[in-house]
Amino acid sequence: MKQKTTSRTSNGPRKLHSTGSRSRKMPRHVTHTVLERLMHYYVCLSKYDPNIEWISSPHLASQFRVDDTQVRKDLALVGVKGRPNTGFRREQILDSIRRFLGLGRNLDAVIVGVGRLGSALVAYRDFRELGLNIVGLFDNDPRKIGTAVSGHTILPTARMKSFIRRRKPRIAILACPVFVAQILAYELVEAGICAIWNFSPTTLQLPDGVFVRNEHISIGLGEIAYHLLPS
Amino acid sequence: MKQKTTSRTSNGPRKLHSTGSRSRKMPRHVTHTVLERLMHYYVCLSKYDPNIEWISSPHLASQFRVDDTQVRKDLALVGVKGRPNTGFRREQILDSIRRFLGLGRNLDAVIVGVGRLGSALVAYRDFRELGLNIVGLFDNDPRKIGTAVSGHTILPTARMKSFIRRRKPRIAILACPVFVAQILAYELVEAGICAIWNFSPTTLQLPDGVFVRNEHISIGLGEIAYHLLPS
Repeated sequence: MKQKTTSRTSNGPRKLHSTGSRSRKMPRHVTHTVLERLMHYYVCLSKYDPNIEWISSPHLASQFRVDDTQVRKDLALVGVKGRPNTGFRREQILDSIRRFLGLGRNLDAVIVGVGRLGSALVAYRDFRELGLNIVGLFDNDPRKIGTAVSGHTILPTARMKSFIRRRKPRIAILACPVFVAQILAYELVEAGICAIWNFSPTTLQLPDGVFVRNEHISIGLGEIAYHLLPS
Repeated sequence: MKQKTTSRTSNGPRKLHSTGSRSRKMPRHVTHTVLERLMHYYVCLSKYDPNIEWISSPHLASQFRVDDTQVRKDLALVGVKGRPNTGFRREQILDSIRRFLGLGRNLDAVIVGVGRLGSALVAYRDFRELGLNIVGLFDNDPRKIGTAVSGHTILPTARMKSFIRRRKPRIAILACPVFVAQILAYELVEAGICAIWNFSPTTLQLPDGVFVRNEHISIGLGEIAYHLLPS
């Protein structure tokens, strides 16, 4: 079993680790790009005025700057069928994407590294709405340990492994300095973490079977700088 | 001239707005994915021990979990040539990517919305190293206006347009609540902003010619949830 890693720098389709017996029809491969597009539809459509019941695919296409055909293909993948001359029911899109991606279930997570970025993530409003449930915060700064952020008391990283073994969260959000990221990531995995959402700007070497998503904020700056180059 | 928008949900290659007379050889199209991969190499290699002078393409490939051929193609694109049996000079990779993307020049930016995420972005250490220079912070919360974050005093959004016209930053980082994002983005563009780095979880409708990069943090959760679904 290979470690499953992805990032915005990922390169083309990825095989899912498991392609087996889901309760719904599941395509063998769903690419990184498709998953992100579905999530983008979901996040944005969930913020629409609740009175908006029907959405047309040209509206979605222009809103998300993708192809009309692509939108219909994405929605078909998650089992949403449109109605001729009317479009798609917003609630059905939301329900179908939620089930397809496995959102809304209790996704328990710990945050490791409670600096400015870590604190922002603890308080990030969308997370709770999407089913992400922060159950513990860890840091090794003695000035932070014992203080509370958004109602959670920061615990020392020395207690991280026992906490994870007891509470069994499957996700760890890593927002610690680069120089401790690798060692902490390894400890997280040893304690039973299945997926690491890595906000530390470094790559991680981890045992097989762990899903890693790199969320390197500064990556976007390259594209912006490039587009601002004088022509 | 079309508005140039990109996001992690973007769909395949994008034409650059300008393909003209750069001082270096410039390919007609550089995709979103390639730009992100280059930036990923750059950010990670810049954090290596400075004593590491040579890097092999298999090392890079395994580090970034891309194909060996892909790495060599990416480096060739920015003009880096390897040496047989030795690899690539780290400094040359860094210099070439920096020049290619236009990093290291003074990229002045304002941050609009200084909540937790905005404050984390002001203090994000990598930004300065990459040439991003925060010149102003704006918020419309009277409790925040006049206070300082990382040495910058928060100004009211009412003063944003005049500030931008005077200081001429080209980038705006939007980290405000969704319900004010569209109106503030429009004002930023009116004042002369060329690129919006949008951290508010909404899509923006903007006049032609503005480059928008959507950085919706919760998008990643969809992929993580999906990979944690029971098989």
